Amino acid sequence: MNANVARSFKLTIAYDGTCFSGWQVQPNQPTIQGHLQGALQRLTGESIQVIGSGRTDAGVHARAQVASCSLVWRDSPEHLVRALNTQLPEAIVVCAAEEANKGFHAIRDAIGKRYRYQLKIGGVRGVFDYRYHWHLHGKLDVDQMRLAAQRVIGERDFRSFQAAGADRKTTVRNVRACDLVVGPVGDDQAFYLSVEVEADGFLYNMVRNIVGTLVEVGRGKQTVDWIDQILIACNRDAAGPTAPARGLFLLRVDYPCSVLKSHA
Amino acid sequence: MNANVARSFKLTIAYDGTCFSGWQVQPNQPTIQGHLQGALQRLTGESIQVIGSGRTDAGVHARAQVASCSLVWRDSPEHLVRALNTQLPEAIVVCAAEEANKGFHAIRDAIGKRYRYQLKIGGVRGVFDYRYHWHLHGKLDVDQMRLAAQRVIGERDFRSFQAAGADRKTTVRNVRACDLVVGPVGDDQAFYLSVEVEADGFLYNMVRNIVGTLVEVGRGKQTVDWIDQILIACNRDAAGPTAPARGLFLLRVDYPCSVLKSHA
Repeated sequence: MNANVARSFKLTIAYDGTCFSGWQVQPNQPTIQGHLQGALQRLTGESIQVIGSGRTDAGVHARAQVASCSLVWRDSPEHLVRALNTQLPEAIVVCAAEEANKGFHAIRDAIGKRYRYQLKIGGVRGVFDYRYHWHLHGKLDVDQMRLAAQRVIGERDFRSFQAAGADRKTTVRNVRACDLVVGPVGDDQAFYLSVEVEADGFLYNMVRNIVGTLVEVGRGKQTVDWIDQILIACNRDAAGPTAPARGLFLLRVDYPCSVLKSHA
Repeated sequence: MNANVARSFKLTIAYDGTCFSGWQVQPNQPTIQGHLQGALQRLTGESIQVIGSGRTDAGVHARAQVASCSLVWRDSPEHLVRALNTQLPEAIVVCAAEEANKGFHAIRDAIGKRYRYQLKIGGVRGVFDYRYHWHLHGKLDVDQMRLAAQRVIGERDFRSFQAAGADRKTTVRNVRACDLVVGPVGDDQAFYLSVEVEADGFLYNMVRNIVGTLVEVGRGKQTVDWIDQILIACNRDAAGPTAPARGLFLLRVDYPCSVLKSHA
């Protein structure tokens, strides 16, 4: 290994988004990308760009965000993990580093992503979990929500579920799964519901807009067929409100095995 | 009910202590007592003192802290709960309000308390749970810790487990239970251990000092018999280090039924 040649890395990162102004670097704001780039600068003395698979908003969390970066590093990937973690705040942790092939790019090479959105229904305000749920009151018809969730599956134009003002070349995405998972009932009779959405890619605010829309159905304000009308409209105004950031977790980002150097 | 007569209330309060400078009011610092008194002032227009069963330190949490206060309130205790919660930050919630007999005092009338201290051993740094555990690495002999925990049970002089400089009339307390509870093993092979301590009352930092001492035994640096030597010494320097605040939860404060107005 030539000691001065930059190597490409795939980093897997978890964070609690509560106290950050989102992923992307912004002047004088605490951001995940900013902390990672700061950590790499302190370790290497170089200014290194860290590219995330997608920009998460302020308050959005990640269990396994993926980022790419290229740096001169003479030690093992495991040592890079340990070194980075000594330089990061407690709400950000690098879970893994793997050596990737030259040119690995966390956005361009991604082939799929999975998000989870967490809802808490009823019960008292939770002082230990309020950062991780959208807390709703009143009844929610989970069966109707589950039927509605089926309607967003498939390759569709999701323009209506994209934040107004966002500008992407194409708004067609392939949603592979939209699963509703009912969790345990808490001491206070609250119940927990997660919406997990998997797709080849996501538009800006897409999961939060799908969840806000499913909740309208769950509350009985709209019927299941409304989802079809929204998709046909190709207009953000047709869909329901945007669910709050705090309930959203980026669970996983998928890549072909061939991006890794260990791939034969 | 005379509309202008002050009524006594017993409030049960939960909080995440991470972002507060502890329970007790301090100028220009966010405190639990300060937020509660501010909420009552906004609701009633009066300056009302809220007395907690004990002062928790910065970073210490409560599942059921108890406080007493006296105020003119023309509505039900349930309405007081709802009104207070509209005025409190998300990390503080009033779980219950009950009308108490005149003169009810959260410190003087308490007959017992239970705390839980949470440890996480091994595994990766948890971005979603770091506020609620003391994260340790290396092996911990839980059986030895359990034997050591038995030695603090009973009516003893706990001066050695009191923070240096604290000044109480008597340092004798009756520890009724010191239970070690092993929790589930996490995905990352971390395991969770809680120490629950119940007593008629606690000295300043007593639980954190007991836990820091038990960890020394668990790490094999000290034997079980060391606990007896510490108790005999009546000197803070004899015991182990103080465990960090973040792992500590006030679980419960007990009072005789007779403090409540509903008591016949």
